[in-house]
Amino acid sequence: MIATDVISGQVKGAPSALPADHIGNGFFGQDILSVRQFDREKLDYIYRVADEMRSLVKRFGKANLLDGKILANLFYEPSTRTSSSFQAAMLRLGGRSISINEVHYSSVTKGESLPDTVRTLESYCDLTVLRHPVTGSAELAARYARKPLINAGDGTGEHPTQALLDIYTVENDLGRLDGLKVAMMGDLKYGRTVHSLTRLLSLYETELYFVSPEILRMPDEILGEVRASGHNYTELRDVDEIIGEIDVLYITRVQKERFEDPAQYDEVKGCYVVDPALMAHAKSDMILMHPLPRVYEIAMEVDDDPRAAYFRQMENGMYIRMALLAAVLGKA
Amino acid sequence: MIATDVISGQVKGAPSALPADHIGNGFFGQDILSVRQFDREKLDYIYRVADEMRSLVKRFGKANLLDGKILANLFYEPSTRTSSSFQAAMLRLGGRSISINEVHYSSVTKGESLPDTVRTLESYCDLTVLRHPVTGSAELAARYARKPLINAGDGTGEHPTQALLDIYTVENDLGRLDGLKVAMMGDLKYGRTVHSLTRLLSLYETELYFVSPEILRMPDEILGEVRASGHNYTELRDVDEIIGEIDVLYITRVQKERFEDPAQYDEVKGCYVVDPALMAHAKSDMILMHPLPRVYEIAMEVDDDPRAAYFRQMENGMYIRMALLAAVLGKA
Amino acid sequence: MIATDVISGQVKGAPSALPADHIGNGFFGQDILSVRQFDREKLDYIYRVADEMRSLVKRFGKANLLDGKILANLFYEPSTRTSSSFQAAMLRLGGRSISINEVHYSSVTKGESLPDTVRTLESYCDLTVLRHPVTGSAELAARYARKPLINAGDGTGEHPTQALLDIYTVENDLGRLDGLKVAMMGDLKYGRTVHSLTRLLSLYETELYFVSPEILRMPDEILGEVRASGHNYTELRDVDEIIGEIDVLYITRVQKERFEDPAQYDEVKGCYVVDPALMAHAKSDMILMHPLPRVYEIAMEVDDDPRAAYFRQMENGMYIRMALLAAVLGKA
Repeated sequence: MIATDVISGQVKGAPSALPADHIGNGFFGQDILSVRQFDREKLDYIYRVADEMRSLVKRFGKANLLDGKILANLFYEPSTRTSSSFQAAMLRLGGRSISINEVHYSSVTKGESLPDTVRTLESYCDLTVLRHPVTGSAELAARYARKPLINAGDGTGEHPTQALLDIYTVENDLGRLDGLKVAMMGDLKYGRTVHSLTRLLSLYETELYFVSPEILRMPDEILGEVRASGHNYTELRDVDEIIGEIDVLYITRVQKERFEDPAQYDEVKGCYVVDPALMAHAKSDMILMHPLPRVYEIAMEVDDDPRAAYFRQMENGMYIRMALLAAVLGKA
Repeated sequence: MIATDVISGQVKGAPSALPADHIGNGFFGQDILSVRQFDREKLDYIYRVADEMRSLVKRFGKANLLDGKILANLFYEPSTRTSSSFQAAMLRLGGRSISINEVHYSSVTKGESLPDTVRTLESYCDLTVLRHPVTGSAELAARYARKPLINAGDGTGEHPTQALLDIYTVENDLGRLDGLKVAMMGDLKYGRTVHSLTRLLSLYETELYFVSPEILRMPDEILGEVRASGHNYTELRDVDEIIGEIDVLYITRVQKERFEDPAQYDEVKGCYVVDPALMAHAKSDMILMHPLPRVYEIAMEVDDDPRAAYFRQMENGMYIRMALLAAVLGKA
Repeated sequence: MIATDVISGQVKGAPSALPADHIGNGFFGQDILSVRQFDREKLDYIYRVADEMRSLVKRFGKANLLDGKILANLFYEPSTRTSSSFQAAMLRLGGRSISINEVHYSSVTKGESLPDTVRTLESYCDLTVLRHPVTGSAELAARYARKPLINAGDGTGEHPTQALLDIYTVENDLGRLDGLKVAMMGDLKYGRTVHSLTRLLSLYETELYFVSPEILRMPDEILGEVRASGHNYTELRDVDEIIGEIDVLYITRVQKERFEDPAQYDEVKGCYVVDPALMAHAKSDMILMHPLPRVYEIAMEVDDDPRAAYFRQMENGMYIRMALLAAVLGKA
């Protein structure tokens, strides 16, 4: 395990004389490992490129920015939606994707190290997307990689493209980020999604509400970062007191696999559910978000509510990933 | 489980003002869920488009009708030939395909519902092909899908593209359907293939022969439909009496996995086999068909017989799927 | 099992009037099953085409030679690097690839024969790459295939594209093959890689050194072939005596899965390791090669040594496969 806050500053694949910081707003040749790489300026740039991607896809189905480029889509643990989203993003940019999903039975099982696997795939491909169950593995792989690497989730560590699509959905649906009241609800302890989103929202003038059972509170480390960024926040056990005021309700599923004791899971699973009765108390222009998959925590009756933004989130994920792929390859 | 004879009439992805029934002979924006959606006119249209696809592939290797389109090829159970055929069809149309074959270990295992999986994939893709082990699942998924969905087999339910490639092979090899004598032989009870083909052949002036052991007879439901369509049929235990008269012999393998009692399987498996001795009694211009995979029920010595049509069937499957993909996306 | 030295001379997919021997230097329509198909002239042709492929990829990312062509990438056992390399090669040629990796749970499990699977895939695709655990299976499949088939490894039999990329790396890095001193070290008994490379090097004026423990000596069959080709060779237990003289050190991992007795494995595994101390005694212009994956047999400290050629080998694998794909389809 290595620290993930040490972000490499090298420009991969760039001629040494090139003023790389000024290409693609500094993304060219970079790895995307952590939301900590992003400030407001970089986020604004990615939102704007994602907007263009949406426009191109709506009109033409694709852009040809990455014609001739190949993505190595390397997944050490299954994630249908993230893998498919990166593949679709690459294909809609005119590039190609090679998926390596079967790493549980591939050369990895012969004992090969992650750095060797990544360097081998780089021999054929132009960049790598990596999903890995071990925290810090994206940073480790990026240290050896000669071409850009995008972290698609490393254990309980980071999943920066998820956080970017989340914040982009807020920006896109509500038109702004400053001045919003955002509530996160459910599993705030184990959900890396809400941790990363909290870090990004702390770059804006947002009011944050953390709604969870006691045993699933937002970790002190994250709360400390929020305070350090100059924000206040409110912790609650119940969303009822604030449901009429908030602009965003972000709900995360209580995942059984995060619990060591199944009884602990059964105790809390039913507490944080969104149904039409709850939505009746919410503002008419708020949005309801969820990283998906959902199981029971949002009733299907809510799906047709225009405030239900979770399938829009999925679509935005493709635009955000198109923006990042194009940016790190210098084509945004 | 839901009824599969309730076919949605909505036009997916169509602007509301569009006279969608007149685009692509009514296929534009439609799901392909069941052979019951097809009448003679619609079948003729699909044959004609498939003919064009064959011509384009033979001359150019591909057509560019679906440039910029992405297929979500979603297989909840393995089927190498069906999956590969749809992928090839999409690629030869200039489109791209994202295969999701690993659903046994994907987000589905986290408890996600089929409608959510399909709606998520639709966020990235332009249409969905679904293979699922549960009868009725294609209809269920299509009810929630906002984009066209093609049923690639749902349990013991429907597998409409298989039936279409079967009947298209007869039409293409023999030049007509009316006036033919068609025998189906082998497992007529569990084989959805012969059920669907029987329904389609009942739209033409065909004479049908059902050759099977008693315990694997064509189900009464199908026989009733044949009678209701105004056709006669003949049930036989042995193909010898008619082998010299028939234009088509369609053989299906007795699949071990369909039997609860292995002894029952061993009893019948050897009874319905085609070898050169049998083919010596058949007409010179008849054709021998099989949905594949075959194991022992057609001797490999028969493969070089020009009447052996089963590998042509495979190729026709690609043209039929190209025709359907183009038709539902309004590009045929 | 069948003999692999009977190489089919038929020209697949060629109009009969075509002087196929003169297209693509005789590769058009051929299967690539064994290194025994290659003489110096054919090797020179493939090196030259691979050089062109490298140049096209470096400048444009791709060539459009195989636009409209589809590869069936059929892997009956996992091999991330070989599968990815063929996929990338096909994509960079402007073609498309359909990967069938899940054959452990596909129609094959329903009892379908390899010839039927290959003929089915050929119905959709323009050529087949086959990886199979059983020796001789590539030759068997090619006998039934109507389109070109490339052997991507069949058990302990052949893996011709690996041998071609190995010898091409020597040629490319050192500028020649005649007059070189080449040492192979490690598992020389079970490693098909070193067997095939030895056969190819025997076409040139090379001096061969075989460095292995007694129980992993180069098989007598291969040694006999080397003598029959008019070459001398030297067998050694230790590389130290020749490290200062050799131009190429090719090391292969001692694979645990090759041993019936794990104790035998533990006894020899540590004996044949390359580290900076060993490299300090090697010539400044020699190269260190490895087929990868490596585990412990080359220390990671060696990776930054410019003589470490193993990641270049990987990249060369793509160019060699591009050359072969284009050649057998008549587009080189």
